Amino acid sequence: MSRLTKEEIAEQFKAIQDHICRELEAEDSIAKFQEDAWQRPGGGGGRTRVIENGKIIEKGGVNFSAVYGPTPENILRALKLEQADFYATGVSIVMHPQSPMVPIIHMNIRYFEMSNGTYWFGGGIDLTPHYIDEADARHFHQQVKNVCDKHHADYYPKFKTWADDYFYLKHRKETRGVGGIFFDRLMESDEMSFDQIFAFVKDVGMLFAPTYRYFMNKNSKIPYGENEKSWQYHRRGRYVEFNLVWDKGTKFGLDTDGRTESILMSLPPQAHWTYAHQVKDNSPEAKTLSLLKKDINWLA
Amino acid sequence: MSRLTKEEIAEQFKAIQDHICRELEAEDSIAKFQEDAWQRPGGGGGRTRVIENGKIIEKGGVNFSAVYGPTPENILRALKLEQADFYATGVSIVMHPQSPMVPIIHMNIRYFEMSNGTYWFGGGIDLTPHYIDEADARHFHQQVKNVCDKHHADYYPKFKTWADDYFYLKHRKETRGVGGIFFDRLMESDEMSFDQIFAFVKDVGMLFAPTYRYFMNKNSKIPYGENEKSWQYHRRGRYVEFNLVWDKGTKFGLDTDGRTESILMSLPPQAHWTYAHQVKDNSPEAKTLSLLKKDINWLA
Repeated sequence: MSRLTKEEIAEQFKAIQDHICRELEAEDSIAKFQEDAWQRPGGGGGRTRVIENGKIIEKGGVNFSAVYGPTPENILRALKLEQADFYATGVSIVMHPQSPMVPIIHMNIRYFEMSNGTYWFGGGIDLTPHYIDEADARHFHQQVKNVCDKHHADYYPKFKTWADDYFYLKHRKETRGVGGIFFDRLMESDEMSFDQIFAFVKDVGMLFAPTYRYFMNKNSKIPYGENEKSWQYHRRGRYVEFNLVWDKGTKFGLDTDGRTESILMSLPPQAHWTYAHQVKDNSPEAKTLSLLKKDINWLA
Repeated sequence: MSRLTKEEIAEQFKAIQDHICRELEAEDSIAKFQEDAWQRPGGGGGRTRVIENGKIIEKGGVNFSAVYGPTPENILRALKLEQADFYATGVSIVMHPQSPMVPIIHMNIRYFEMSNGTYWFGGGIDLTPHYIDEADARHFHQQVKNVCDKHHADYYPKFKTWADDYFYLKHRKETRGVGGIFFDRLMESDEMSFDQIFAFVKDVGMLFAPTYRYFMNKNSKIPYGENEKSWQYHRRGRYVEFNLVWDKGTKFGLDTDGRTESILMSLPPQAHWTYAHQVKDNSPEAKTLSLLKKDINWLA
């Protein structure tokens, strides 16, 4: 049985982007995505869609891209290859909500293929609440686990640990948020065919809209004040630190002359830094900090 | 003639820190530096001094540190050494002013020594105006050139070019500001003795206070409004991008488990990001962007 082509995968990723944008616009009720279609000088291009100043979303992006051409030097070196063409396609999302009570969310699904026959899938979804609510974290992880379990019993435990390690601010000794899943270099094996892996990746993509709509709807009704806004701006500062210092996708994009505005759509509209910022003992902020740890079993 | 010891160099760096803090407090007239004295678990420590919410300075730091111990793995690898102890001392400064009409400034002087006999001096000073004024840029470069010329005719042209290359946001194709000087691995030679190099490094340190007081005093009197504040926040976003993505000192500090709050005192109190932020044709913002280029001879 012939497997899907890279172009067919890109088309299905585009459809997932369309679905997510429709769903987020419906839930936000005010803001609409603005699209920038762009071409990559070396080959391919993308559809960057940004939403700003909504009722619930303050700034967010849902990006699709499919780029190709000669493989960048640093990838060739890492893979110990002389020369090869590459094809990379994916959907990448970050949402910064207006309310500090609604979590920041990130999702990415991607497919990479090289002319020498190498290919893999990657992706992930993780939640970064400004205030950690254990019931919310449990709900999120349960949704993610349900999708994983449908495809392979090992996926959730393996990819949950991977997310804990990946979404980690080493210099702060903090996780970015409550984690989720992260996976990379997924290839077909005796257990999982190419199409089965792609079905899992698509399910991760399709999980995004209902999961985030749930938090947009429920948490945007929670009242907050100046103190919570200030905390949100400081947590956004941490989000900036993760994305610019540690995130491998951002680093790769900036190093390989990617489209800067599409890569950095992940940055918040506004972030604050205060030297040695302190929180009050037994406050919701202190509780959040205490839960920014690896290896928490949110489903326990 | 015996040269200064590393401890004597550190003492003189401390004196430069004291001098700069006194001068900045005098010019600001309201805010005072708060000091955090800290110890490094592996050896040594520092005096982090932060000033916040002043009349002219919104947030800034003047840090001194002298740290030592076994050389971190990544340095050993870069220098192709098996094992060696290191000693590093320096003063590092970043100032974010309240007014968008007052430039951001950075200065650093440092000395590094290893138990195998290797040592070097490094440093730099560069100016990042939110709005570039050519007369201000000329004044700044003239002061820097005067200090360089006192020590070696090659220093200004060589270190000015080095600053253009170092303080550069590759992903934006922008320099950070109007540059200044940057130098690293300065060692004694037939032309310059150890003490002569140290005298140059100290002069760079002593140049900071009068130079920045000049801009604090003159530019804080220039009126501005909401438009200029918004531009300042966006330029601060670029400053964050440089420091977290490209700055080698920040990267080294965060990679080697340095004191995060001291390293990241360079971040602004507040920064903004807008997707594909636009400026009006022929505006002061457009003029500034057009001057964020390498190889401008500000003294021409």
